[in-house]
Amino acid sequence: MKLISTLLFFLLLISLTYSSATPTRSRKRDRVHEPCKRLVFYFHDIIYNGHNSKNATSAIVGTPAWGNRTILANQNHFGDLVVFDDPITLDNNLHSRPIGRAQGFYIYDKKEIFTAWLGFSFVFNSTQHKGSINFAGADPLMNKTRDISVIGGTGDFFMTRGVATLSTDSFEGEVYFRLRAEINLYECW
Amino acid sequence: MKLISTLLFFLLLISLTYSSATPTRSRKRDRVHEPCKRLVFYFHDIIYNGHNSKNATSAIVGTPAWGNRTILANQNHFGDLVVFDDPITLDNNLHSRPIGRAQGFYIYDKKEIFTAWLGFSFVFNSTQHKGSINFAGADPLMNKTRDISVIGGTGDFFMTRGVATLSTDSFEGEVYFRLRAEINLYECW
Amino acid sequence: MKLISTLLFFLLLISLTYSSATPTRSRKRDRVHEPCKRLVFYFHDIIYNGHNSKNATSAIVGTPAWGNRTILANQNHFGDLVVFDDPITLDNNLHSRPIGRAQGFYIYDKKEIFTAWLGFSFVFNSTQHKGSINFAGADPLMNKTRDISVIGGTGDFFMTRGVATLSTDSFEGEVYFRLRAEINLYECW
Repeated sequence: MKLISTLLFFLLLISLTYSSATPTRSRKRDRVHEPCKRLVFYFHDIIYNGHNSKNATSAIVGTPAWGNRTILANQNHFGDLVVFDDPITLDNNLHSRPIGRAQGFYIYDKKEIFTAWLGFSFVFNSTQHKGSINFAGADPLMNKTRDISVIGGTGDFFMTRGVATLSTDSFEGEVYFRLRAEINLYECW
Repeated sequence: MKLISTLLFFLLLISLTYSSATPTRSRKRDRVHEPCKRLVFYFHDIIYNGHNSKNATSAIVGTPAWGNRTILANQNHFGDLVVFDDPITLDNNLHSRPIGRAQGFYIYDKKEIFTAWLGFSFVFNSTQHKGSINFAGADPLMNKTRDISVIGGTGDFFMTRGVATLSTDSFEGEVYFRLRAEINLYECW
Repeated sequence: MKLISTLLFFLLLISLTYSSATPTRSRKRDRVHEPCKRLVFYFHDIIYNGHNSKNATSAIVGTPAWGNRTILANQNHFGDLVVFDDPITLDNNLHSRPIGRAQGFYIYDKKEIFTAWLGFSFVFNSTQHKGSINFAGADPLMNKTRDISVIGGTGDFFMTRGVATLSTDSFEGEVYFRLRAEINLYECW
């Protein structure tokens, strides 16, 4: 009988364990979130201004009626759409060996302050990383840090999701800026 | 022996319960989907038309060869790309206190009828909500309701996913429209 | 006693089974990924070139300072933003009955080679499929195949996620191209 009651206790334990552990997709998850992967990169944007076509990594391609495509528009660049192909580096040096490219677009979308909306990918094809990470979200760039969503990935980053925290590491006039991206992935496959 | 058979029955029950409850990521889920969070907001778009720069919350910044950036193009505005920074309110009154901003872009993308593609965020920084919700998807705006994807979120909406059902709550000529967004989140963290 | 030890063995088995099967969201998943759904479609893009307004399914709506909106720009079309509403077919024949529309945009984003960034949806309203699938990602179109992310879906594709492998099935000058999209969904609801 002692064995049986031990058994019963064990059973109860299993039962309790699994009823709490079984995830329900539509239930609120616990608040302790450890990333399954954490990555830090820098990327460098040199915007075309009419004189730097050789070095430029980005260009204005859309602008409101009152703007043009060689000078960022008034009203905090509201309406300027910029396409970019920026080198990604592991440190904050523009001249370090790029390990990938940040490719996509940003749109300045507010008249009163600088803020933008981003849709882009990190595209890797190096010994360290192969594949891509895709991002989307609002970038209120006057904030010290701001979070955007990692909405998917391919290759080494197959099906990944997470949050990327951006910060402006350098800002030189209206032509060059450098962003630091700390990527925390919470869904890894 | 009776105890043992009861035990066996109990075991069988557990076994059956968990074999059906254990989720496999790549298996089709049950069709009963309860949102873990439901939110309703309104947002208000006043498009720049050359005369309303003070009130305008959006502007045409891209257009096909036959269009221009102060008047929406022919052919159901096909090709017009609009950047917006629209106030979000809890009711359908443009003059209610905004609790956030809807920021991003839409592109009219069909010649035969009105339809658009949306990429935008709800950005909150109020006592009610902090953080952002990111959206993407097709908006066939002549339909009474249409669904787009919630592709991610940050802050209070960390890692969220779901579906937002949009409906046009008001439409005044070519300058003002108001959308109702019912957001149903099915992944909450 | 034999029964009890059998029972114990059974218990141990259950325990082992579930401890390995219980998924932790933030843990790395096994590397065997079977799609829960696989779909293959073709879509057809005819870009407006000033002479084909009747047949064109897409148009340049943004371009860098050195470009224009009837001819794709120099430097591998860098900066050209194209809006499209392309028919989706089940085979590679442009004249097959469309079962939906591919709607959204692409932006050529590199000066040295052809590559683009895509944001678009497959919109279905047929007997086969109702609802939409939303995509985002980098399309290095000189590669034989390239992967983009399925970032969400609605209707029949409610909450879906996955990877779409694109390949250029045909390319006729600068006006017509046809893409094959093999969609592998790994999250089905």
